[in-house]
Amino acid sequence: MEFDEAVRSRRSVHEYSDEPVDDDTLEAVFERVRYSPSSYNLQPWEFLVLTEDGNRERLQEVAYGQEHVTDAPVAVAVLGNTDPSAHAEAVAEDQLRKGYLPNEEAKEGLLETIEGMAERDEETNRNWATKSTALAGMTLLHAARAEGLATCPVGGFDADALREEFDIDDQYEPVMLVTMGHAAANAQDTNAPRKFRRSVDEIVHREAFEPTAADLDDEVVTESYATQ
Amino acid sequence: MEFDEAVRSRRSVHEYSDEPVDDDTLEAVFERVRYSPSSYNLQPWEFLVLTEDGNRERLQEVAYGQEHVTDAPVAVAVLGNTDPSAHAEAVAEDQLRKGYLPNEEAKEGLLETIEGMAERDEETNRNWATKSTALAGMTLLHAARAEGLATCPVGGFDADALREEFDIDDQYEPVMLVTMGHAAANAQDTNAPRKFRRSVDEIVHREAFEPTAADLDDEVVTESYATQ
Repeated sequence: MEFDEAVRSRRSVHEYSDEPVDDDTLEAVFERVRYSPSSYNLQPWEFLVLTEDGNRERLQEVAYGQEHVTDAPVAVAVLGNTDPSAHAEAVAEDQLRKGYLPNEEAKEGLLETIEGMAERDEETNRNWATKSTALAGMTLLHAARAEGLATCPVGGFDADALREEFDIDDQYEPVMLVTMGHAAANAQDTNAPRKFRRSVDEIVHREAFEPTAADLDDEVVTESYATQ
Repeated sequence: MEFDEAVRSRRSVHEYSDEPVDDDTLEAVFERVRYSPSSYNLQPWEFLVLTEDGNRERLQEVAYGQEHVTDAPVAVAVLGNTDPSAHAEAVAEDQLRKGYLPNEEAKEGLLETIEGMAERDEETNRNWATKSTALAGMTLLHAARAEGLATCPVGGFDADALREEFDIDDQYEPVMLVTMGHAAANAQDTNAPRKFRRSVDEIVHREAFEPTAADLDDEVVTESYATQ
């Protein structure tokens, strides 16, 4: 799918058809996700992918009962590793082998830098993990769309309950949930006019920062993919 | 450009050619960025776009002197509004008009929910703004690539110095910087083998969460766009 079409036709979909998502499609989606960028290539993202009914029901509890969590054939918990040093050795060795770092000394320097990141306060590293993992989360939403799937990112869930229910260590920050599947033919979200977006003029500030309030007249063109 | 090609050919590029980025291209990039999703469609993202030499030099100071900040013809500070209620009225009115909300009472309910979000503690809202804005940041990196541009996301900068230098209120959380332009023909980043990425098997956990350490053998195919 063209990049433009993937971006413009992506909607947050709450109603799914019964059609399952096959493993090859899931693999193709995550194959793209892993190309996302991260500080020093530290790749803190992890994805708990749930397709079994019982597991999506457990996730639904954590997500305040939202119906699409079980209506969708796939639900994903997107998690960020708050320890920047988790994969440091592999990351640094890779950069040495490929010439991004000139020698062992430079590799040691990078490892020290990453160790310094790991020693920052908890809030800083939580925010770092959230940011890096959200980048991969956006790639996930677009990559799924490029494979013809619908998704819905979910911010409303109980992070502590998620950790407890799925035995996730405190080291991992739950960043978002994503439901995924094929949109129902009559899904309101793909048939209703797209919600407005703030205009480019409003969100882009050239050379100086002068924020303005949202103007409802800044529509984006409505596009549906229910019939594609 | 095909979605796959945009994702696979995107690299973090530190060396740029002298070719400027014209306004139509910039407009096309941000036209895609605005389609990004956010909780309740609250769209907390703002972009300070710097093309004037003096302004990129000011940004470079804030970014610990990183050379590509002035080497690239465009540098962007990606900012998140930590006040979820900033655009609440327009967002709720839009959803009422388009049938996402059934009536005025539901609109008032949504406004109360958003007000409740705004009253959360500072760290929670900072993390929320970071997450939502990072989603738009990833769209920015991919959209730029789809327009044939190179980018580099920058996490290493002094957020307080950025706020002070560009008169940015504390309400806005600096999420990342992005340099943007046309890759230099001999840019190391587009000619060197791509850095390794953790494999799909490593980052995807089916039905249960069992994280594993990075394995350097999980290469991704190297692709260059220097010659495209």
